[in-house]
Amino acid sequence: MQGTVGELGEFGLIRELTARVPLTDAVDLGPGDDAAVVKAPDGRVVATTDVLIENRHFRRDWSTAYDVGRKAAAQNLADVAAMGAVPTALLLGLVAPADLPTTWATELMDGLRDECQVAGATVVGGDVVRGDTVTLAITALGDLQGRAAVTRAGAQVGDVVAVTGWLGWSAAGLTVLQRGFRSPRAFVEAHRRPEPPYHAGPAAAELGATSMIDVSDGLVADLGHVARASQVDIDLKAADFDVPAQMADIGQAVGVEPLVWVLSGGEDHAIVATFPRGVQLPARWRVVGEVTGRPRGTRSGRVTVDGAPWDRVGGWDHFAE
Amino acid sequence: MQGTVGELGEFGLIRELTARVPLTDAVDLGPGDDAAVVKAPDGRVVATTDVLIENRHFRRDWSTAYDVGRKAAAQNLADVAAMGAVPTALLLGLVAPADLPTTWATELMDGLRDECQVAGATVVGGDVVRGDTVTLAITALGDLQGRAAVTRAGAQVGDVVAVTGWLGWSAAGLTVLQRGFRSPRAFVEAHRRPEPPYHAGPAAAELGATSMIDVSDGLVADLGHVARASQVDIDLKAADFDVPAQMADIGQAVGVEPLVWVLSGGEDHAIVATFPRGVQLPARWRVVGEVTGRPRGTRSGRVTVDGAPWDRVGGWDHFAE
Repeated sequence: MQGTVGELGEFGLIRELTARVPLTDAVDLGPGDDAAVVKAPDGRVVATTDVLIENRHFRRDWSTAYDVGRKAAAQNLADVAAMGAVPTALLLGLVAPADLPTTWATELMDGLRDECQVAGATVVGGDVVRGDTVTLAITALGDLQGRAAVTRAGAQVGDVVAVTGWLGWSAAGLTVLQRGFRSPRAFVEAHRRPEPPYHAGPAAAELGATSMIDVSDGLVADLGHVARASQVDIDLKAADFDVPAQMADIGQAVGVEPLVWVLSGGEDHAIVATFPRGVQLPARWRVVGEVTGRPRGTRSGRVTVDGAPWDRVGGWDHFAE
Repeated sequence: MQGTVGELGEFGLIRELTARVPLTDAVDLGPGDDAAVVKAPDGRVVATTDVLIENRHFRRDWSTAYDVGRKAAAQNLADVAAMGAVPTALLLGLVAPADLPTTWATELMDGLRDECQVAGATVVGGDVVRGDTVTLAITALGDLQGRAAVTRAGAQVGDVVAVTGWLGWSAAGLTVLQRGFRSPRAFVEAHRRPEPPYHAGPAAAELGATSMIDVSDGLVADLGHVARASQVDIDLKAADFDVPAQMADIGQAVGVEPLVWVLSGGEDHAIVATFPRGVQLPARWRVVGEVTGRPRGTRSGRVTVDGAPWDRVGGWDHFAE
């Protein structure tokens, strides 16, 4: 394999990348034609796109190409799962400087492939172009298997709020990295490679989730989207969150209250959903709050913690400094 | 509307952009949730992604934001059509510097919207992030309406090669712009805003096209993909191409043989297909060559013009200088 993607050329790079991805039963036509053909047995397809830019969404000195691939795939596949759909396919738009090592691109693809495999999907196509900044544009597709899509807009007053997956681990890991440390490994790893509970999305839909979202910007921020879309208020109970002892230790070491990571940290891609009270939730879901609301017309889409506003390190605005 | 996307912020920008796109019957859930939901009545979905970078694929001083949007949508929607599918939906990943005028982003979206409308699709979602270089990542989806996908791999020895749409107009317009001129307008316009014959893709599939591709890199280069994928040779007849008088005039003025634009110029997104000999083609298709081939094992995937190799200004390699 030649040293850089510039030496390899566009078509050589495409060959290297596409050779690494297996096809699945969901793929009628994989990479190499004008477009891919992916099964959509439900008769609807779920589709979402995210863009990740070097030094903004990832750093090549903090994460391997493989981990960047895992994470880039994860955040898109989690969006599909959070609609209640099963991920089927992923497309990659890759902007690469000519001096990017070919191995970086192929390891990125290995990461995308392996994360897709966890979620039951595969890479079906994409585009590579030359540019100054390594940039990934990922589109994920999914199938609803006959279920109604679970949007952000269906939460009902009286519902419980429940979450599954990791919360605050990525943010704690990022803090550790920002302070120049490489451990504790569990948190650094969580920052480099989130583990969204993909299966929980479709399962929540089956259980009658009234609204659902994946936690990419932070739990309070993302529940804010739900509260506004559903025109309800949401109150979380701080005591109902589990702050791992090791996270508390890091918090003490770096002077951060760990609940801030749990409630405001993004990128773990936990899945949070609202359910009618009384739904029997599987063991790995944790009820952490409830959907409240006041007389119609006065609802504000607010998210509170123990009844009070939560203003600690809010959500992520991609245009903020 | 605030002056720059940085002043407007991520969520403000998303609101501005999504407010501009209409929903269609194919859209079950449009922008604003974790993912969009698009109808895929065929039970399969066609999907393709392209990335466009400022000063590589477009120039803000040569094209308006609106035209960049039209063109970016066109090249993806043409890929869908060239599979024999009807475009249904488009997703936009937009990288924008904080000082990008908000109007540039909204006019871009207007262009995407209007080109989608020509093709019968609409914008269903996307992502906006901040970065140094304006970059567009477009994903287009389409529906095969029960037809088999027409790939690059089905051309048969004895088939005719036929093309519909414009050839060489964009390349001639680019040459004009590169020489510092802004006219003749027809060619400059063709460069700024291609007009792919979207309907011709599904129609060709209905007529029994054995292979099909849209002309993005140049007719000879793109037919090279068909010839290699189908393991056949293709011979074009120079005399069967129509070189408009005005294109010949520009050619003479700038010292370019216009057939070079016709055979090697990309970005018009004409559609070229192979058909069994004897298929009655609609009026706007032009037969320009035939699928040849030699005894199995010696086929080379070559494209010739009047029996001779064509080596004039070949296809486009995105990693070449």
